[in-house]
Amino acid sequence: MEKVLKGKIVADAINQGILNRMPALYERGIVPTLAIVRVGENPSDIAYENGAVKKAKTLGLQPEKFICPADIDQRDLIEVIKAINNDEKIHGILLLQPLPESIDADAVRNTLCPEKDLDCISDASLSRLFLGETTGFAPCTAEACIEILKYNHIEIKGKKIVVIGRSMVIGKPVAMMLLKENATITICHTKTAEADLKDLCRGADIVIAAAGHAGTLTADMVSPGQVIIDVGINFNEEGKMLGDVDFEAVSKIAAAATPVPGGVGSVTTTLLMKHLVEAAERTVK
Amino acid sequence: MEKVLKGKIVADAINQGILNRMPALYERGIVPTLAIVRVGENPSDIAYENGAVKKAKTLGLQPEKFICPADIDQRDLIEVIKAINNDEKIHGILLLQPLPESIDADAVRNTLCPEKDLDCISDASLSRLFLGETTGFAPCTAEACIEILKYNHIEIKGKKIVVIGRSMVIGKPVAMMLLKENATITICHTKTAEADLKDLCRGADIVIAAAGHAGTLTADMVSPGQVIIDVGINFNEEGKMLGDVDFEAVSKIAAAATPVPGGVGSVTTTLLMKHLVEAAERTVK
Repeated sequence: MEKVLKGKIVADAINQGILNRMPALYERGIVPTLAIVRVGENPSDIAYENGAVKKAKTLGLQPEKFICPADIDQRDLIEVIKAINNDEKIHGILLLQPLPESIDADAVRNTLCPEKDLDCISDASLSRLFLGETTGFAPCTAEACIEILKYNHIEIKGKKIVVIGRSMVIGKPVAMMLLKENATITICHTKTAEADLKDLCRGADIVIAAAGHAGTLTADMVSPGQVIIDVGINFNEEGKMLGDVDFEAVSKIAAAATPVPGGVGSVTTTLLMKHLVEAAERTVK
Repeated sequence: MEKVLKGKIVADAINQGILNRMPALYERGIVPTLAIVRVGENPSDIAYENGAVKKAKTLGLQPEKFICPADIDQRDLIEVIKAINNDEKIHGILLLQPLPESIDADAVRNTLCPEKDLDCISDASLSRLFLGETTGFAPCTAEACIEILKYNHIEIKGKKIVVIGRSMVIGKPVAMMLLKENATITICHTKTAEADLKDLCRGADIVIAAAGHAGTLTADMVSPGQVIIDVGINFNEEGKMLGDVDFEAVSKIAAAATPVPGGVGSVTTTLLMKHLVEAAERTVK
């Protein structure tokens, strides 16, 4: 393969952009502040939270934790979010998901005000994306795919892009974002015939694998010259992190592909921080 | 061609369904009432309005006209819509578009409450569609495409469907609706390379032509066995109505196609009336 599309170099460039923007905010006495809302003590939530805290501090941003007990009443959790919405010193919210099953996650995520919804998790933010408006923040993972392509000067406009997966978390939003970037978009999913999936992937310029299953994209589905973006985060029986793409086999054929770990995921949190800085900047504009 | 997919037979079946549902509403003293809001005296608006009035009366539904002068102040027009929103005797709204250029059409259409937005023109209704919710009404033209396929027992699930056009009026909504019906969806548009458009169309099971230009789909883009749905309404220099599809040439190759006029357009107003009856039924549920 010509190129492994590593996330770190993209994240570094975005980090530098953030650092350049900070002095103007500090001068106005503004420290971009991120509310991290966690419910319960799930180890993967805590790991993600620690990563976000560290990243924020490295960039001179202020993380503020809101830790709620696992058995918190849904109404109380909604009040926590509302208080954050109304707190002028907080510029953005990271709500760790999934929430415990006892809680109506839709009701909670839809409480986030669009101005602080840094990862586009509320219906109001997602709707703006569908309507082609740019007033809200894009979902960080979907945006990370596009940032990696752009950083590597891979043309999107007029290209045939196949998205595998149609979730509201990644598949549908990334398809809408790529459509806005003037790509020709095909959305495949579990009900797509196997032969069609193979043909469509082989015929694409770019494939975005976002099905949430290891082994979704295999060597027989890939053509020379293609670019493969792997959004999957899966774990095998030994606890090893795997993407949706059979990277080793696919990398022998495709022109470029993102690794997992070290690909899309490395850019996502950085974009969250970029959105936080933008949210803070918007409060003074 | 094996079959011309005429709209009238589909509309007749829907009409019969509406007529069957009316007695239960009449028994409760409810006459489904449609507010038709027209601004100015545009002849094509008046023609459409007359068609809707006639159709409503044939089905025992009550049309109520709200005719506003062409120079109406935007705030006054919004007040008209708000009054209709709040009028319990009115169950649905047909807002004739396009509105005069002096008016912010977005502000007006977004005033429609989702419960009475029979043609899914407000952002709130369109958002529900994107999110896969079924609480709002679908856009009538997009739904007409699907009704014609279903009436003719043409499978949608697992089929490759190409949508040409990405407008919020038809392209994006119909793509989302077909995705929900488990089709594999490709969205093509003005920035799709000509060769890709031809290949993708030829490889599809169903093509929905919704570009808004006569001659968008020509014989060289069609394969035997395909089903073609033509959403276009265009007029040539002699004032003759044309679809987006070169029907005469395409019909020699495809298995089935909708004519223009007499295809999708014949079903659209009927679906508006069906939505009106549903809106009236929901007020008593």
